[in-house]
Amino acid sequence: MINVFENLPENTELEHFQDIVKSDAVRIERIVSHGQSSPEEGWYDQDEHEWVLVLSGYGVLEFDCGKLCQLKPGDCFLIEAGRKHRVVETSPKEATVWLAVFYR
Amino acid sequence: MINVFENLPENTELEHFQDIVKSDAVRIERIVSHGQSSPEEGWYDQDEHEWVLVLSGYGVLEFDCGKLCQLKPGDCFLIEAGRKHRVVETSPKEATVWLAVFYR
Repeated sequence: MINVFENLPENTELEHFQDIVKSDAVRIERIVSHGQSSPEEGWYDQDEHEWVLVLSGYGVLEFDCGKLCQLKPGDCFLIEAGRKHRVVETSPKEATVWLAVFYR
Repeated sequence: MINVFENLPENTELEHFQDIVKSDAVRIERIVSHGQSSPEEGWYDQDEHEWVLVLSGYGVLEFDCGKLCQLKPGDCFLIEAGRKHRVVETSPKEATVWLAVFYR
């Protein structure tokens, strides 16, 4: 058993990605951000669907249609495969812990 | 976008199950308990793997080997397919919100 709020990475200058479950069907990942955002030109364009849930802090997603989506703890959102998106903001004051479930 | 802590069911006499994501590959479900436990004789014996995460309250799982596993917020656990288990306790004082990811 693990706790998603424990063993947060000490290095807050990087965003951290950790697989919790990895199988052929699904991958469940914890992402910990400390104010990071995606590079200006860097859009995620993924082959898999990604369902995200914010567990602490907050994050703001931008989609290539211009839509912004702010997620606070408990907010969740399905990013369908091929929907270009990036993270434009995460909380600078505390760890933003995301849970992401990737599947095809 | 939905928030897993919002729109909690008003009827606290029943356990509530709500699909958040449902696809061929994966099903993500919110479960809200209010002190409920599984019936004494009722073991879950599932064809799918179930990864569970407690988001509020607490829950205690029992496995047919006798092992007990108490989950507080942030605790997560993978229940492999075919591993018989039941819920022996959930918080009587507040809603226990579980996230469950089912996959094969």
